[in-house]
Amino acid sequence: MLEQFHVKEEDAVRVREDALRSTVTQIFQKVNVPPADAALATDVLVTADVRNVDSHGVSNMLRAYVSGYNSGEINARPNWRIVRQTPATANVDSDAGLGIIVTPKAMEIAIEKARNVGLGMVTVSNGRHLGMASYHAMMALEHDMIGVCMTGCPPSVLPTFGAEPRLGTNPIALAAPAGEEPPFVFDAATSVVAGNKLGLASRLGVDLLPGWVADLDGTPLMEPVPMSSEWAPGAEKQYHQLALGSTREMGSHKGYGLGCVVDILTGPLSGTAFGMVPGRPNFSHMVAAYRIDAFTDVDRFKSLMDDFLRALRTTTPAPGAERVLYPGLAEREAEVDRRANGIPLHREVLEWFKDTCSEMDIPYILS
Amino acid sequence: MLEQFHVKEEDAVRVREDALRSTVTQIFQKVNVPPADAALATDVLVTADVRNVDSHGVSNMLRAYVSGYNSGEINARPNWRIVRQTPATANVDSDAGLGIIVTPKAMEIAIEKARNVGLGMVTVSNGRHLGMASYHAMMALEHDMIGVCMTGCPPSVLPTFGAEPRLGTNPIALAAPAGEEPPFVFDAATSVVAGNKLGLASRLGVDLLPGWVADLDGTPLMEPVPMSSEWAPGAEKQYHQLALGSTREMGSHKGYGLGCVVDILTGPLSGTAFGMVPGRPNFSHMVAAYRIDAFTDVDRFKSLMDDFLRALRTTTPAPGAERVLYPGLAEREAEVDRRANGIPLHREVLEWFKDTCSEMDIPYILS
Repeated sequence: MLEQFHVKEEDAVRVREDALRSTVTQIFQKVNVPPADAALATDVLVTADVRNVDSHGVSNMLRAYVSGYNSGEINARPNWRIVRQTPATANVDSDAGLGIIVTPKAMEIAIEKARNVGLGMVTVSNGRHLGMASYHAMMALEHDMIGVCMTGCPPSVLPTFGAEPRLGTNPIALAAPAGEEPPFVFDAATSVVAGNKLGLASRLGVDLLPGWVADLDGTPLMEPVPMSSEWAPGAEKQYHQLALGSTREMGSHKGYGLGCVVDILTGPLSGTAFGMVPGRPNFSHMVAAYRIDAFTDVDRFKSLMDDFLRALRTTTPAPGAERVLYPGLAEREAEVDRRANGIPLHREVLEWFKDTCSEMDIPYILS
Repeated sequence: MLEQFHVKEEDAVRVREDALRSTVTQIFQKVNVPPADAALATDVLVTADVRNVDSHGVSNMLRAYVSGYNSGEINARPNWRIVRQTPATANVDSDAGLGIIVTPKAMEIAIEKARNVGLGMVTVSNGRHLGMASYHAMMALEHDMIGVCMTGCPPSVLPTFGAEPRLGTNPIALAAPAGEEPPFVFDAATSVVAGNKLGLASRLGVDLLPGWVADLDGTPLMEPVPMSSEWAPGAEKQYHQLALGSTREMGSHKGYGLGCVVDILTGPLSGTAFGMVPGRPNFSHMVAAYRIDAFTDVDRFKSLMDDFLRALRTTTPAPGAERVLYPGLAEREAEVDRRANGIPLHREVLEWFKDTCSEMDIPYILS
C-alpha cells in the first residue's frame, strides 16, 4: 500500500553524490549564502537524499529554499546570536537564518555544553525550515553522545476531537550510537503522515490511506479517500491531517500530546510564539545532546545497544512481512547503496536543476 | 466506545482522600516501609486516584506492591545510591526500591542540578514499578521547571512487522507550568492502550477495540476482538499489544520507535539491560528537569503557555464531540471534584481494603 507513494526507479535517474553536492553548493552561493554555510546546507540536504529521506532532500526542499532566499523570507547572512545561556543551556535567535544552517551550529553549542557538564540543550527562535531533524540529532553520534532534535511547524494537524488545525506536523528525532550495529536514528512527525504525502497523492493520482486525514469538519476518515488532482500545497485544504493514532479510540490523544510537547519545547521555551500563532513566519527548533559517559561507560552502552538493536531486527516477522527493522537501519542501507550507485532523482527534478543551472550560470553536470 | 472501560459510578463508593491516605500509609508501614517513605508512596498512589488515573492508583497497584514487598522482590529499605554523576546528570542504583519511592528522590536530584546548571537528568537502574509517570514530571512545576519521566517496562508490545513482543508499554510523561490555565501534563504509554485494558476487558466482558492488539502471529486486528473471560494478567497471552499507530500504514513504526527511545534512555543509558532481556526483574527509569529561566523569562513562558493551552481547549469541536481537551486538563478537573467529593473506589477494592486492614490490624475507616 505504501509503495505507491515512492518515486519509481523507472521515473528516476541515478545522480552521483559528488556532482549533486557540487551543484547544490553553487546554487546556495548564488542566492548569497557564504561558502562555508552553503557547504553545510548542502550536507544537510544531500544527507537526507542519501538516506532515502526524500521528503527532506533536494527534490522537495531546494526549490522552496531558493524561493525563500529570493523573496527575502530567509536571511542568507543571518547575524544569529545567543540571547541567554547557562552551563547546560542556550537560547539562540536565528535572525531568520535557514534551519539547515543555523541548527547545526546550535547543536555544536549543545555538544560543547554536554562535554562540559553532561547535558546540553539549545532552543532556536526566529528560525526557518529545519530540514531533516535527524541530521542535527546524528551530529552527537561521533562524540559518543545521544542527540535530540524537534521543530515546531505551522498548524496543519487537528487536536483530538477538534475541527481546526492547531499543531504542526512537529517531528521528534533522537539518535543513539551502537557498537557494531548501525546507529539507532528515530525521526518522525507526530502526525500520522508527513504533510507532503497529500501533495504526492494528488500528483500520483492515488488515494490517501485510511486514518491519515479528517474531513474539514474534523471527522476522521477511516476509508481510503481521493485527493483532487488539482490540489497543490498552499491551495485551499480538502482535508485536515490527523495526529498519530488517528482516532481517540486508537490513541490520537497521544500523537496530539506529543505534538504539543514539541510546540512547548521549541516555542514557549524559546520565549517565542508557537505554531498556531497567525502569521508566525518562522519555525522554532530545539536540539539537545546527552553525554553517554556522564551516565555509564560508553563501551557498556554500545554493547547493550548492539544487543538491543540485534534483538529487534531478528524478531520473527508477522505473516506477509519480510523482516523487522529498527529506526535508522533502512536509512543506513540506503546510504550504502546510494553512496556507491548514485541517488535516484525524478526526471522532473533534473529538469528543474537543468533550468536553474542555466539561469544561474552554473555548469550542469547531473546527467 | 471507551466509556465501557471505566468503573461505573453505581459500582463505586466515594472515599474521603484523607481516610484513604491514612489507610494506605499504614499498609506501607506494615510491610516494613519507613514512615517518610510510606507517606511518599501514598502521595504518588493517591495523586493518581485523585487525578482519575485509576490504572496507577490504589485499586490497580497497591495489591501488587504489598505482594512484592512480601515476596522480597521489592526492597522496603533500599540503600539506593548515585553510582556516577556530573553537574547535570546522575545515574542511581535503586537497590530494588519501589519506583514510587526512589524516583521522586531521583527527581529531586534532577531539580537540584537544573537549579545549578540549567538542566538535570537522572537515570535509575535496578528499579521497581514507577507508578504514574506524570507524578515525577509534575514535581518540576513548583520550581518553574519542565519535568520529564520515562520508564522501560517488560516486553508486551510488537515491533512493526514483528510477531514477538520486544518492547514494554514504555510511557513518556512531560509536565510544563502555565500561568492561569491548569498545567500541561502529558503522560502516555507508547502502545495503543495501557496493558491493564486487556484484563479490564476480560473482567467486564467487553470486546477490545479495533487496532489495539495483534494475533499471536503478529497480524494487527482491525476489528473488535473478544477477550476470554478466563483471561488474567500473567496468564498465557491471547493477543499481543500493538504500538501507537496500530499498523505500518497508520504509523505504528512511530509508536514502536518512541518505545525504543524510552528503552534506550532508561536501560542502556543507565548501564543496565533493557525491557526484553529475559528475566530482567526490574524497571529502569529516567527523570529530567529543565529550568525555564535558563532559556527565557518565566513570566513570558507562562503567558505563552496560557495562550497556547487556551487556544487548544477553545478549538471548535468535531461533530459528536463535546469539547477539545489538552493533556492534563481533565485530570485537573477530576482533582477538583475528587478532593471535594471523594474518590470513587470499586466495591471489590473496598472489600480488599477491609480484609487487608483486618489482617494487618489497621482500623478500617474507608466506608
